[in-house]
Amino acid sequence: MMHTTVGIVGGGPAGLLLARLLHNAGIDSVVLELRDRAYVEQRQRAGILEQATVEALRAAGAGERMDAEGIPHHGIELRFGRRSHRLDFPSLTGGRSVMVYAQTEVVKDLIALQLADGGPLLFGAEVTSVEGAQSDSPVVEFVQEGRAQTLTCDYVVGCDGFHGVTRDAVPEDVRTTYERTHPYSWLGVLAEAPPVYDELVYAHSDRGFALASMRSPTVSRLYLQVPNGTDPADWSAERIWDELDTRLALDRDPGWKLERGPVTSKAVLPMRSHVTEPMRYGRVFLAGDAAHIVPPTGAKGLNLAAADVIVLARALARWRETGSAELLDAYSDTCLRRVWRAEHFSSFMTATLHTDPAQSPFDTRLQLSQLERIATSPHAAAELAENYTGLPLPR
Amino acid sequence: MMHTTVGIVGGGPAGLLLARLLHNAGIDSVVLELRDRAYVEQRQRAGILEQATVEALRAAGAGERMDAEGIPHHGIELRFGRRSHRLDFPSLTGGRSVMVYAQTEVVKDLIALQLADGGPLLFGAEVTSVEGAQSDSPVVEFVQEGRAQTLTCDYVVGCDGFHGVTRDAVPEDVRTTYERTHPYSWLGVLAEAPPVYDELVYAHSDRGFALASMRSPTVSRLYLQVPNGTDPADWSAERIWDELDTRLALDRDPGWKLERGPVTSKAVLPMRSHVTEPMRYGRVFLAGDAAHIVPPTGAKGLNLAAADVIVLARALARWRETGSAELLDAYSDTCLRRVWRAEHFSSFMTATLHTDPAQSPFDTRLQLSQLERIATSPHAAAELAENYTGLPLPR
Repeated sequence: MMHTTVGIVGGGPAGLLLARLLHNAGIDSVVLELRDRAYVEQRQRAGILEQATVEALRAAGAGERMDAEGIPHHGIELRFGRRSHRLDFPSLTGGRSVMVYAQTEVVKDLIALQLADGGPLLFGAEVTSVEGAQSDSPVVEFVQEGRAQTLTCDYVVGCDGFHGVTRDAVPEDVRTTYERTHPYSWLGVLAEAPPVYDELVYAHSDRGFALASMRSPTVSRLYLQVPNGTDPADWSAERIWDELDTRLALDRDPGWKLERGPVTSKAVLPMRSHVTEPMRYGRVFLAGDAAHIVPPTGAKGLNLAAADVIVLARALARWRETGSAELLDAYSDTCLRRVWRAEHFSSFMTATLHTDPAQSPFDTRLQLSQLERIATSPHAAAELAENYTGLPLPR
Repeated sequence: MMHTTVGIVGGGPAGLLLARLLHNAGIDSVVLELRDRAYVEQRQRAGILEQATVEALRAAGAGERMDAEGIPHHGIELRFGRRSHRLDFPSLTGGRSVMVYAQTEVVKDLIALQLADGGPLLFGAEVTSVEGAQSDSPVVEFVQEGRAQTLTCDYVVGCDGFHGVTRDAVPEDVRTTYERTHPYSWLGVLAEAPPVYDELVYAHSDRGFALASMRSPTVSRLYLQVPNGTDPADWSAERIWDELDTRLALDRDPGWKLERGPVTSKAVLPMRSHVTEPMRYGRVFLAGDAAHIVPPTGAKGLNLAAADVIVLARALARWRETGSAELLDAYSDTCLRRVWRAEHFSSFMTATLHTDPAQSPFDTRLQLSQLERIATSPHAAAELAENYTGLPLPR
């Protein structure tokens, strides 16, 4: 039987950043992570950090390697109708930009900090239930190395993702679930090839969406829209590169091709939208993917998770300092406003850039008209850029 | 056998405005209208004129009564979640606004001008075919008072609406049709009741869309989203007013109700999106509803028709003055850019404000997030206001 102030279920970026923010505020926590360290440090996930996320990582003392190795991006390129258009973020948003730094690197940095001077971070800890949300001392039951253990807490935070168990601590009858599955998936590819572009390229094409991104100056991260149920084995490296060449083609440069290199990983990623409301029940809070999933087109998932735990850490610090639960009580509503904005933006980006198998030629022309508008109207461009670089965090 | 420079099929606002613009440019035309004058002058249609349409009517000498009786509107009100938000057009668009002046009044003004000093305007003239688009002298065959007649022309313009015959002069194999039908209709109501608001109110509600508009200081024009196939006879005046009260309700004013008056007309209006490309084939041009239909939510139908004929009249004047067909050759592409912008905006307004019978609670939350964004982001608000007040006409 252990006790801690804040029991954190899940050692992904949300749980680890929360633990760090609480540590900096002098609040105890214990992080319980199902997987082992090596697994967590290799999970491929998102790679775009909003400015507010970058600033929060810096403020938390986790920004050193990010600032050395991360790649600031001041815009993106849109391709459609075999033409390209660049959106310049600083001029459209009053100076905001984003940082390319992989989630897996953020996780490594936060684990190193936590192990150096933070509270307990237990790997291989399988949480079996979270009980007593409405009591003063909720309980996390978990099994580590075959031994059942109990962690009692003042508060429990579920950072355990879409498939986590913490959400079950909120009874079905007080929970509302909003969901959409999308009629296509992404084939996500890592390749040992230098990114051809300095910035991300989002492409609408007759053959579906493509995204040329990067992890580092020597590693490309590439995505292709594929049908749901696609087997990655059907996509040879050659087929992947050929398809990227076709979807990213430009009329002004007909001979152009991507620089090829070994494909080191490929996986099919489903596209899902999901929101669970409320994000707080008694002394149990949900943060990140445990409460909401966005399709990856807007690069919002990791950033939403970071925003949740920043809001929550601030609320817990206020409670610790003053005894007031005011910010804790506001947590769910505060986060959900941002969550729905991101759900909308992610759906907008997804619907505008992908080809729905059921879409008509009329729908395609509307997509192209929307993209043309973004390329020609300062307000339409700024609306995309503001959402992409991220809304300011609530004060 | 008659001859004219420009044969205009259809005496609605597009055909009549074109005839007036050509008259002012010293170009002969003949307008052939299927219906009689009384019918045409009573057809209830749109009522919102974009600033560019207002200026074109003034420049054409058709603005006198519009300026005396039309009602300038400097904004609209959005209602959603039982709250209201006003969009101020001049401050969002650099000074643009719209005019409330019914299409039927525009038509009366243009008919009066045409009959006073314009070319022939033949009522009850049923066009049976348009032939010879690729010849130097296309031919319009029509029947008036039982007598078959032939009008030869230098150019023919189809302003004869969605069900018109001129479109058939463009062979099927060169025509592309883009279409969407929407899963709801509008019940359009005229009532002898003073408008409760100074401006139009566009309402998103749990029970579907509602729009409170006006025709004059004593006549309200009201719309309710209804299922496709609705029989207007099922909607008594009492049911109409009750439903408007519910859909327009505001939390801040719970006792509020619309001021009621006699319902003088009610009809169910289907919602359709349609574009035919190209808008020109040889010496035959299509303008207005003959080439494109938008759902009425963006108030774009009449304004698109006006833009088409303004572009066409300028191109014909250039041809007459210089012999150059350059602007005539560009007509279709020039118009279609604006058409697709309006199709997109109209679909956006329609999809954001209506309740699709198939929509999920997730979709509803996305609509509310979009509306909330418009209410809080200057760029999102300006994007709506710019589209609503209308894009500048091409030079």
